[in-house]
Amino acid sequence: MEKILIKQYKKPKLNSPLLIGGLPGIGNVGKIAAEYIVEKLKMQKLLEIFSQYFPPQVFVSEEGVTYLVRNSVYYKKLAGRSDLMVLVGDFQGTTQEGQYELSYNTLEVLSKFNLKTIYTLGGYSMGKIVESPRVLGAVTDNSMISTLSSLGVVFPKGEPGGGIIGSAGVMLGLGKELFSIDGACLMGETSGFFADPRSALNVLKILSKIIRVEMDLSDMEARSQQMEQITGKAAEEFQQRSQQREDLGYFG
Amino acid sequence: MEKILIKQYKKPKLNSPLLIGGLPGIGNVGKIAAEYIVEKLKMQKLLEIFSQYFPPQVFVSEEGVTYLVRNSVYYKKLAGRSDLMVLVGDFQGTTQEGQYELSYNTLEVLSKFNLKTIYTLGGYSMGKIVESPRVLGAVTDNSMISTLSSLGVVFPKGEPGGGIIGSAGVMLGLGKELFSIDGACLMGETSGFFADPRSALNVLKILSKIIRVEMDLSDMEARSQQMEQITGKAAEEFQQRSQQREDLGYFG
Amino acid sequence: MEKILIKQYKKPKLNSPLLIGGLPGIGNVGKIAAEYIVEKLKMQKLLEIFSQYFPPQVFVSEEGVTYLVRNSVYYKKLAGRSDLMVLVGDFQGTTQEGQYELSYNTLEVLSKFNLKTIYTLGGYSMGKIVESPRVLGAVTDNSMISTLSSLGVVFPKGEPGGGIIGSAGVMLGLGKELFSIDGACLMGETSGFFADPRSALNVLKILSKIIRVEMDLSDMEARSQQMEQITGKAAEEFQQRSQQREDLGYFG
Amino acid sequence: MEKILIKQYKKPKLNSPLLIGGLPGIGNVGKIAAEYIVEKLKMQKLLEIFSQYFPPQVFVSEEGVTYLVRNSVYYKKLAGRSDLMVLVGDFQGTTQEGQYELSYNTLEVLSKFNLKTIYTLGGYSMGKIVESPRVLGAVTDNSMISTLSSLGVVFPKGEPGGGIIGSAGVMLGLGKELFSIDGACLMGETSGFFADPRSALNVLKILSKIIRVEMDLSDMEARSQQMEQITGKAAEEFQQRSQQREDLGYFG
Repeated sequence: MEKILIKQYKKPKLNSPLLIGGLPGIGNVGKIAAEYIVEKLKMQKLLEIFSQYFPPQVFVSEEGVTYLVRNSVYYKKLAGRSDLMVLVGDFQGTTQEGQYELSYNTLEVLSKFNLKTIYTLGGYSMGKIVESPRVLGAVTDNSMISTLSSLGVVFPKGEPGGGIIGSAGVMLGLGKELFSIDGACLMGETSGFFADPRSALNVLKILSKIIRVEMDLSDMEARSQQMEQITGKAAEEFQQRSQQREDLGYFG
Repeated sequence: MEKILIKQYKKPKLNSPLLIGGLPGIGNVGKIAAEYIVEKLKMQKLLEIFSQYFPPQVFVSEEGVTYLVRNSVYYKKLAGRSDLMVLVGDFQGTTQEGQYELSYNTLEVLSKFNLKTIYTLGGYSMGKIVESPRVLGAVTDNSMISTLSSLGVVFPKGEPGGGIIGSAGVMLGLGKELFSIDGACLMGETSGFFADPRSALNVLKILSKIIRVEMDLSDMEARSQQMEQITGKAAEEFQQRSQQREDLGYFG
Repeated sequence: MEKILIKQYKKPKLNSPLLIGGLPGIGNVGKIAAEYIVEKLKMQKLLEIFSQYFPPQVFVSEEGVTYLVRNSVYYKKLAGRSDLMVLVGDFQGTTQEGQYELSYNTLEVLSKFNLKTIYTLGGYSMGKIVESPRVLGAVTDNSMISTLSSLGVVFPKGEPGGGIIGSAGVMLGLGKELFSIDGACLMGETSGFFADPRSALNVLKILSKIIRVEMDLSDMEARSQQMEQITGKAAEEFQQRSQQREDLGYFG
Repeated sequence: MEKILIKQYKKPKLNSPLLIGGLPGIGNVGKIAAEYIVEKLKMQKLLEIFSQYFPPQVFVSEEGVTYLVRNSVYYKKLAGRSDLMVLVGDFQGTTQEGQYELSYNTLEVLSKFNLKTIYTLGGYSMGKIVESPRVLGAVTDNSMISTLSSLGVVFPKGEPGGGIIGSAGVMLGLGKELFSIDGACLMGETSGFFADPRSALNVLKILSKIIRVEMDLSDMEARSQQMEQITGKAAEEFQQRSQQREDLGYFG
């Protein structure tokens, strides 16, 4: 068996397409944002990726139908702009080798569509709930910084300090070194404690400008507000309890 | 050395055979059931699978004779029905790669016999002893649900929540995606605490209807009752002790 | 780089040779015994095995000279009997795949010398110091049991219960299944707490009859007695202290 | 994707060059020393090594530009002496296989430049801060000991006891066994608690004599003194506190 098996369903002619990559990761920010784009833009399935680098697992639907875990790429032709491809999926490669191989093979097959730029999406873990989460950026070529900055992406000096680990980093690194394709990583600040639609919403707002496509973000806004209420209440309660403990300090 | 080595012993012509897969797993339900079928139907050995994906180990018989660990496939021709193949063995692949490769290679060699449907057997861990354990199902195509339901397989909404991990899942997933062979997983509810012949018996009762072969289940019934006595006593004692503790609650 | 690299130094014509395998393991029994044979019989180096399945390590001699870790095979022609080959080395393969590949590749290259029988040596862990440690046996074909029994090898029913893991087992298993070469494993009972020359001595006494070569065992006897004195004293002291504790039991 | 990808930038004709290898390791001694040589001798980039054996990671610069992790080899032609090549990098291979493959592939490509001798650099962990750290040596051929001794390398009997693990060892071992290239490992004694420029300085002083190149070591001397002040203060404070505890011993 090939370590990576790609089933291609369509052979569209694409106009110097952009690739958006959003696989599971910190706060699931990238996955939530990328899947939202696929849904809202009613994108077409281009190909599916099965691999030994994913867990040996099938999911089972509500009705009882199995589904072998995979990554998928969707596409959409957009008049007067670069066309769009989006990578989504159930898992990142579970080993170091798998991370490299999956990124490489995905890029190899997509480069045949004349892939122009890669945008990988991810979460940037803050370890606490942030009031106004930003979207941080990292680029393969510093000529991209000014444009992205003007669209709201932040490039704070020396962040992210530890670099970018996993698919969001390796796709850019291999794209640059082996395919001569430039790209950027957009990282939504997130607590990292739970799946974070608010961070995904921030990423989507900027991404929508990058790809020059207006998207209906109302569903994500609703999910984000819902999340904020829950975490807001949790934070409030937490604060109240801390206050009470403080009041009783002498008796603690 | 090939990572997987298959020694084929026979070249029978089979009539659109069904494959039953029962490797070690939760409660060893699948293995117990599948080995019982091989024994009761006096099936013939078709092939043996040796692999680096199994532990580097020989078993030693009572008499002192070594036996390299392996998986095996047995077959039986059945007049007027689909013929039968059964996969049994000492281990599942011990790595993610091994799970995929072993399932793929097994399917590849068996597909040459015009394999029609795959039934993988497993245990479904309940984390407690259940009074009337059911047999849950998951299928690769929802057209199979009604027939299996009519034979007693249960499809509770949203179960199994975590999907199916290991050989029982991957065989179905790869069968569907790469070999266009449909199949189902039959999962006997089990505590998961020990090898569970009672759960295997439940699976066998349904399986016997699926393959349309009457099997003498008396031996498995005996093992099941023996097991029930042991666990029943254990449960009873446990309950009595709990009761006593409760009676002494004030003094605890 | 090949995963296993074999440097062959000689091309002797051997008379249906026996292979003795003694790699590091429980109590280092096999390694100690096999290296003793190489030394006492002044055997010639046949080949060396380097591999990615060994740790990435060089040893450094007393003088400061590096030595890449390896396995080695030695040989000796013996008039009127089967010739002899001995496998010794610094490590067993450190992964499951490595265990299979190393055993397979070693057998493959040695089978070209018309290899007749394999004897793997190992320790059998007792978890305590045994007064009269025996040598247990396991064979690939039960026709070998009577001869080995007559030479002092013991075949207790159902031992070793867990089978034989690692090189000593896989060499036999692959030899039997893939090279049609029979063999036996000789396991010296040992506490398993330390390198055990006494157990190695027991194995050597029997092995010397099997290969029909008289060996000067005096050096190993000396090492064995030295060890016994040390462990004997340790055991005595331990017993005395236990006694004292018992005497003071009321005050403990 | 190839497991190791080498991008070669130049094809210089080199005069029996020496290779200095300094990858991350104990106290980062080798890496600090090797990078210092590259910088001070203004060496040219010869090639870059990307690999699945490195973590799937990009670093991000202060400005926000990504950098796929790699190893690199630099070179410099030196009139009237052996030319020089230096291996530096972000990581050693993260698996056993990776260690062997990376060392082998690096040696393979560099051997085409008529590579003559290998000097690997590393730290030798003392587990405490040593007043006058030495530079220990290990060689692939004992004919090298007298020269290196005369340049200040120490060969204490039986050290390093555990051998040399990782790139610094495997490069020598494979160089000797598979490429017939001799070499030595220079190990700077270090506490092993932190990156140690003082130990690197010691290694550089000796290395400068070996390669017969005078280097401006003043920057490394400054870093070393800075480090000594910090660790010196820490040690002093530690000693004072211990003293105080001793003074109060009766009341402890």
